[in-house]
Amino acid sequence: MNEIRKQLLQALLASRGFVSGEELSQQLSVSRTAIWKHIEELRKEGYQIEAVRKQGYRLVAEPNTLSPSVIASHLRTKWLGHDLHYFDEVESTQTIAHRLAREGAPAGTVVLADHQQAGKGRLGRTWFSPKGTGLWMSLVVRPHIPLTSVPQLTLLTAVAVLRAVKQTTSIALSIKWPNDLLYGGQKVAGILTELNAEADRVNYVVIGVGLNVNQEAEDFPPELSSKAISLKLAAQKPISRKDLVVAILQEWENVYNLYQQHGFGPVKTLWEAHTCSLGQRIVARTPHGQVEGVARGITDEGALLLEDGQGHVHRIYSADIETL
Amino acid sequence: MNEIRKQLLQALLASRGFVSGEELSQQLSVSRTAIWKHIEELRKEGYQIEAVRKQGYRLVAEPNTLSPSVIASHLRTKWLGHDLHYFDEVESTQTIAHRLAREGAPAGTVVLADHQQAGKGRLGRTWFSPKGTGLWMSLVVRPHIPLTSVPQLTLLTAVAVLRAVKQTTSIALSIKWPNDLLYGGQKVAGILTELNAEADRVNYVVIGVGLNVNQEAEDFPPELSSKAISLKLAAQKPISRKDLVVAILQEWENVYNLYQQHGFGPVKTLWEAHTCSLGQRIVARTPHGQVEGVARGITDEGALLLEDGQGHVHRIYSADIETL
Repeated sequence: MNEIRKQLLQALLASRGFVSGEELSQQLSVSRTAIWKHIEELRKEGYQIEAVRKQGYRLVAEPNTLSPSVIASHLRTKWLGHDLHYFDEVESTQTIAHRLAREGAPAGTVVLADHQQAGKGRLGRTWFSPKGTGLWMSLVVRPHIPLTSVPQLTLLTAVAVLRAVKQTTSIALSIKWPNDLLYGGQKVAGILTELNAEADRVNYVVIGVGLNVNQEAEDFPPELSSKAISLKLAAQKPISRKDLVVAILQEWENVYNLYQQHGFGPVKTLWEAHTCSLGQRIVARTPHGQVEGVARGITDEGALLLEDGQGHVHRIYSADIETL
Repeated sequence: MNEIRKQLLQALLASRGFVSGEELSQQLSVSRTAIWKHIEELRKEGYQIEAVRKQGYRLVAEPNTLSPSVIASHLRTKWLGHDLHYFDEVESTQTIAHRLAREGAPAGTVVLADHQQAGKGRLGRTWFSPKGTGLWMSLVVRPHIPLTSVPQLTLLTAVAVLRAVKQTTSIALSIKWPNDLLYGGQKVAGILTELNAEADRVNYVVIGVGLNVNQEAEDFPPELSSKAISLKLAAQKPISRKDLVVAILQEWENVYNLYQQHGFGPVKTLWEAHTCSLGQRIVARTPHGQVEGVARGITDEGALLLEDGQGHVHRIYSADIETL
């Protein structure tokens, strides 16, 4: 987005009423004619802006999209999401983020789509991503961490999304190890962490977040209806996807700063405070067989510690988890 | 390559002299006219085949290329290299192998090039890959191993390439941790292991092997001339690149079978038997600083154990190593 236009929008957003053309002209150091032209451009993008003689301009409504200009005018992160790619429809935001990362996209690049035709879930599964109702996004990061630490980023993202949802909607979600966010036991969000690496160096990580926002109960296909829920159904009111995107990017950057400065310790503490997995009797279906037991904690690598009936503690790196 | 033509070639290769058209016709269950047509096709591919009345056909010379038909006629692996992609010139075989793997190429797919314009080395460096003189190849594998085990594949590949070179040329190389093969302290080969994964599951691994085969001393650029050497310079005679490819693929499959059946233990034993790194006083330059000490061994994850002057043992996952 044009930098003047972004500042103009921010000035209109900051004021709840009218801002005079004269004031905007001084604040942005451009002519009043230029202000008028940028207002016209914003109207073309879908902004409703009222203009009244002697009073100036007033922002009445923003376009109901997740377009880069809308997000950029609200975003206050230092680096995350500054390079934002928005698509009305994609196969999968993960696939696009991988391509951008391969082509050298900087850390903090974000891919956002209104609709995914083939959203990717964990372990090669699909993620139901209908049009206009959810948040389907992928972040590109380039952390200097060993391969063994990459699963920590899934847990970090779960914490960030949970906090952003709480701020934006007051809804308290809980985390199911390793990558789901639940409301009343039903899935609201999933996280998919993928990486490209040398054997001893991470090239880039793509973190996908799929979040059910404004679906109605009948929007879910029958096989998901008992397992999945949207924030709108949980809050019993529609939720602004734009506010959620902005909050998620801000919280992700905050929690990642904490992680970079103090390591996984504080992230682990936050994760443990919000998980519903610990203390539960669960069955973990791993690629190497099934383990039943009580979830006791997570390791510093993000593995789940599962104590079986004989008191033996298993480290679970990859599994499907079901509460017994 | 056409299956009949492959069998025909194998029959000619198996015989050191003439094979009659009648015999080939019976062996391959096709007409003598068909045999003649396939012989013509092979000649077009660059095979020199002598035909003498009443004696039959005799293979005089194979084309001096690494084309799939040449490799396939010699290859006896069960799965590795059956899907072989050969290019006269590529940017990097790694890049192509990654693309093929993303598009679903099966485990065992091999990419081979006569010339790389931008061969990839470890830690984002380049690898000097001139035309016609080296082996520049990438293998796609899909192992069911945790991310932490991926560095083992670098060590496994070092063992396989070393054994293949020994068989083909009688030259004894040594392994410098983690990924170089040396002759008299100079670099003959490098290995680059890259992966694409979810946080808890490997999607695929691409293993690149760059091997200096027939370069003359003056073929190396000045900055490499004291550091790099070719097998031809080491053996003081030219080496068949085709024989090397076939031997490397066979040995890789053998060592990988060992790894799949018995784990990393026997591979580690082979690696330790051929390394020049252990017992040496070295300096390891890691992303987190420099460690000096004596290399004592490798861990089961393939990390180097380095004992410093105070007797403290460091685990080195990623570093440049220099012998003191």
